[in-house]
Amino acid sequence: MSKVVARIGMSLDGYITGPDAGAEHPLGIGGERIHNWVYGLRAFREMLGQKGGTEGQDNDVVAEWVARSGAVVMGHGMFISGEVPWGDEPPFHMPVYVVTHHPRETVVKEGGTSFHFVTEGPEHALALAREAAGEKGVSLAGGANLIQQFVRAGLLDELLLHVVPVLACAGTRLFDNLGTDQIEWEKVSVIDSPEVTHIHLRALKQAAG
Amino acid sequence: MSKVVARIGMSLDGYITGPDAGAEHPLGIGGERIHNWVYGLRAFREMLGQKGGTEGQDNDVVAEWVARSGAVVMGHGMFISGEVPWGDEPPFHMPVYVVTHHPRETVVKEGGTSFHFVTEGPEHALALAREAAGEKGVSLAGGANLIQQFVRAGLLDELLLHVVPVLACAGTRLFDNLGTDQIEWEKVSVIDSPEVTHIHLRALKQAAG
Repeated sequence: MSKVVARIGMSLDGYITGPDAGAEHPLGIGGERIHNWVYGLRAFREMLGQKGGTEGQDNDVVAEWVARSGAVVMGHGMFISGEVPWGDEPPFHMPVYVVTHHPRETVVKEGGTSFHFVTEGPEHALALAREAAGEKGVSLAGGANLIQQFVRAGLLDELLLHVVPVLACAGTRLFDNLGTDQIEWEKVSVIDSPEVTHIHLRALKQAAG
Repeated sequence: MSKVVARIGMSLDGYITGPDAGAEHPLGIGGERIHNWVYGLRAFREMLGQKGGTEGQDNDVVAEWVARSGAVVMGHGMFISGEVPWGDEPPFHMPVYVVTHHPRETVVKEGGTSFHFVTEGPEHALALAREAAGEKGVSLAGGANLIQQFVRAGLLDELLLHVVPVLACAGTRLFDNLGTDQIEWEKVSVIDSPEVTHIHLRALKQAAG
């Protein structure tokens, strides 16, 4: 069955956006600082339909991860704040299943991205994404709330954190609202670059209790 | 002038203790999980006056760090929760300056540890610790609240985070109450072991503004 994987940039203090994230500031105020290491990479520019870019270790990490996935699951909030900036050719280039309470017709964009609006909950969105992904993995894009739901439900198999050496001090924390029980991960690898530390984790499946 | 350094174990989600930390549970409920990688190390056992222990990379990191410091600054809460468990020969083996509102005579323990109670604030405690440390550094022991005060005031020069691959989900977060401005760090090194990832950071001194 498809692995469910998420990769996300995070500050030292656990923030993935700055404050006031939303349609006006998709990454929150100042949130670019958490993600700017990725913008110049060849693999990232390619997702945006741009040529050129930096190669090397960080690019390899991102390129390898992007190639793993065949479908995306995304929360309503992330879709709403991204829809306009992503434009006619969004950077996904695969089917995207948006978990939402708002039914809407499927939107087919250029470059292979289609947005499918799923009102039957995250697990149903995941089932559809698995079917679309085939042999590949399902990428959990965010936002924080949806990732938290997946972690709590034991549905996230792997997590790649890109930790940047800044204290954001405010914004949206990735790890919040996770209940009270500790959740163990196995470290797969840590790859360190000057701008970012890539921590690749695999969920340790707990006995159902 | 003496460097001010702190090293501390932290979960993936930024917790340094479990919930309900205090005299009854110095590390909070379940908080041992965040710190148990250190207990078997030779350098840590030596601080406790115990022989033997594990050598290797993690031990080297801790031993090197411990050897850097000649005095300790500590918050009142950490002292209160530690005083009884530390016993007659506390693990510091150097002068400890406790930032507190409660004046008390200096307590001299066995093995070189003395506790000095400073009621004139953290900067005064730091000045006394610098004087005691001589050529060596000043170790900021914690708790979270005092470390946060030092970070906010730009008084912490270096930070060594021992990140363990667990989501603690509850407890005391190291990075909280830091204001709203982003705080940049320079990464000195990242050393990865199966149980823990050591992230060594140096403060980037900002222009006063």
